[in-house]
Amino acid sequence: MIDIERANQTVVERMMSARPILRTIVRAADVIPGMEGRRLLHAGPPIAWTHASGPLRGALIGACLFEGWARHAGEAEALLASGAVAFDPCHHHDAVGPMAGVISPSMMVYVVENVTHGNRAFSTLNEGYGKVLRYGAYSEEVLARLRWMNEVMGGVLADALALSEEGIDIRTLLAESLHMGDEGHNRNKAGSLLYTTKLAPLVVRAAPNAETAASVLKFLGDNALSVLNPVMAACKAMADAGHGVAGSTIMTAMARNGTELGIRVSGLGDRWFTGPAGMPDGLYFPGFTAADANRDIGDSTITETAGIGAFAMAAAPAIVTFISGAPQDAMHATLEMYEITIAEHTAFTIPALGFRGTPTGVDIRKVVELGVTPRINTGIAHKEAGVGQVGAGLTRPPMSVFEDALVAFAEQYLEVS
Amino acid sequence: MIDIERANQTVVERMMSARPILRTIVRAADVIPGMEGRRLLHAGPPIAWTHASGPLRGALIGACLFEGWARHAGEAEALLASGAVAFDPCHHHDAVGPMAGVISPSMMVYVVENVTHGNRAFSTLNEGYGKVLRYGAYSEEVLARLRWMNEVMGGVLADALALSEEGIDIRTLLAESLHMGDEGHNRNKAGSLLYTTKLAPLVVRAAPNAETAASVLKFLGDNALSVLNPVMAACKAMADAGHGVAGSTIMTAMARNGTELGIRVSGLGDRWFTGPAGMPDGLYFPGFTAADANRDIGDSTITETAGIGAFAMAAAPAIVTFISGAPQDAMHATLEMYEITIAEHTAFTIPALGFRGTPTGVDIRKVVELGVTPRINTGIAHKEAGVGQVGAGLTRPPMSVFEDALVAFAEQYLEVS
Repeated sequence: MIDIERANQTVVERMMSARPILRTIVRAADVIPGMEGRRLLHAGPPIAWTHASGPLRGALIGACLFEGWARHAGEAEALLASGAVAFDPCHHHDAVGPMAGVISPSMMVYVVENVTHGNRAFSTLNEGYGKVLRYGAYSEEVLARLRWMNEVMGGVLADALALSEEGIDIRTLLAESLHMGDEGHNRNKAGSLLYTTKLAPLVVRAAPNAETAASVLKFLGDNALSVLNPVMAACKAMADAGHGVAGSTIMTAMARNGTELGIRVSGLGDRWFTGPAGMPDGLYFPGFTAADANRDIGDSTITETAGIGAFAMAAAPAIVTFISGAPQDAMHATLEMYEITIAEHTAFTIPALGFRGTPTGVDIRKVVELGVTPRINTGIAHKEAGVGQVGAGLTRPPMSVFEDALVAFAEQYLEVS
Repeated sequence: MIDIERANQTVVERMMSARPILRTIVRAADVIPGMEGRRLLHAGPPIAWTHASGPLRGALIGACLFEGWARHAGEAEALLASGAVAFDPCHHHDAVGPMAGVISPSMMVYVVENVTHGNRAFSTLNEGYGKVLRYGAYSEEVLARLRWMNEVMGGVLADALALSEEGIDIRTLLAESLHMGDEGHNRNKAGSLLYTTKLAPLVVRAAPNAETAASVLKFLGDNALSVLNPVMAACKAMADAGHGVAGSTIMTAMARNGTELGIRVSGLGDRWFTGPAGMPDGLYFPGFTAADANRDIGDSTITETAGIGAFAMAAAPAIVTFISGAPQDAMHATLEMYEITIAEHTAFTIPALGFRGTPTGVDIRKVVELGVTPRINTGIAHKEAGVGQVGAGLTRPPMSVFEDALVAFAEQYLEVS
């Protein structure tokens, strides 16, 4: 007879004891397993080109242009449609990416190591706001920024991190930033300042000259999402530490590709349970409306999977100005998530709730039994390739993915017992 | 007949419309009015050497050593006791200083300009934690740090600020930091990160070499109170904008010298109303107890006077780990302060209270009528000269200073009407 409760405890203990340290920055092809040839990684569960949404297509096209595999968008589309350029989920390669989440072989990626259990996770450098690849934009301005990030900033940050013996402890950084109004997903303002400030003396020492150091520090400091990508890699490293425990009903991945949302469950191997990605309910930038919105997209729900993001909303009442709602809704969001989780995080606490730990470890049984799905904070991409971000808001995964996972769990475990 | 309500509205409108911009850093003797000869400035209302507390004596001694007026503490004491070295309140010279608040002629000071009304305010550079002059320590380690701050960091920061056309808008910075868990007095963690991050590219460009830039950025980044002194100067500039309005009962200064606390009232000129400074109720560093504590000290209550600090506690629930209490107490502190103030700040808002403005403009009539004195967040200095900080906590001014001020107000205004 399997002991689900015990298996689940093991999962959350592993997730919470994982200590993700940002070590270095390396070219994706040199560090990500299985990233050979003309292959791109993307957010969410697997998807065929014919089903890919506008922003995902835009980002894949942009990556082909960035790599020099195509001279224009039409040529890139042909390569992607024909299979001459392959694309896999980031999650199949120990990686995560925000929004479209595209990683190409030449891109510099963060390397985060969970020193407790030894696993690693990878993510790209964050591009900032506006017209950016992760929202499906691929104009020359977007590509030029990516080249500067890759050729200038990436090298400087790698050299800066090399000057730090201990690396940057992202769990500690997150714990601090949750006490400073961040929830770690859509609001990473304090975390990005902590990150920039920690790196600043190292960047100055590592940069080839003052002007380069100044431009890197200005880029990091002006971008309130600078730390989002290392945070996502850290959450991936923490969640993966809890993956693969036989008999566990805890969700260890949740990701969207702009068409479908998929979840993985610790005791159910690498199988995805998928359903339609949600339409976010949110606030739009001037000139855009809900009619412009794509379905939800991105691996960034790895934050909710690890116990932060929408689950830590009570720590971040100011976020409602960005994603809609009232501060009281933020408190309510966290309180609701305690109902479908089995632990309170030992490292991530919420001052306004008397330093209670964030709700951690979604039990798919509770989701189905209570009819309460996980909450998701998210950015909103334009539905057409090449446009970019149009807003930010809230959504939820479809209940069907939890029901499907629970059926699969019963098939795998309960028949044999 | 005087219109007190109208006068008070004028005061808070001037305080809230004041826009304090950090412009530059200059030697105190070159910019602070009336700072000629062998003269030191200190926190709080005026005091004689014979009544000065241990930490104030320690800081005044340290300043004499720093200036080279004395070779050892005994010599410095003799100069101070004899009047050969004079000392005045910072507030008499448009300045403010945390804790002992000592400013000597050679020290580099921040220059903050209220661009709405044209007045300026000054404050020293923050030394960080531990054994520091402002807590009354004056060992060679303390003086060496002050020399480095003055000779290296001060010049670099002055050159960095000179590269910024617009300066640094401290009101905007405070508004942001209040959304990031700061209250602006004892917790300036987010504000100091915002400050360091804004300065970083400028420091890199201004510094003579990378090592100097790195050391300045590390010093600023490691000190969660880096921005306290510019914030205090900004609050002084805002409060002073509301001072001197005939018929107003609004408090425009509150300061402690370690023996006495004094307040000033907008409609009552430059007169201080003084009483014994409080004994803070707080948390002590390991090895220290309440028996080691000095009475409350510092000009930092200019933050409460301007509508932040203890008045904005609801924005900073995490602060209770530092100054004692539960997060609910933080909420209660702000709610109580609405009872004795006449405005809700238009620039400083509290997300957890539905973005309500902070309680601003203490009306001495309300204090006396309700029997509720302003709350103060504070650091705690050791009572003996030369030791330093021993903890942090909460206190209040004595009710008598408000009663005395109200009697004076009646004498000045009500007899003639």
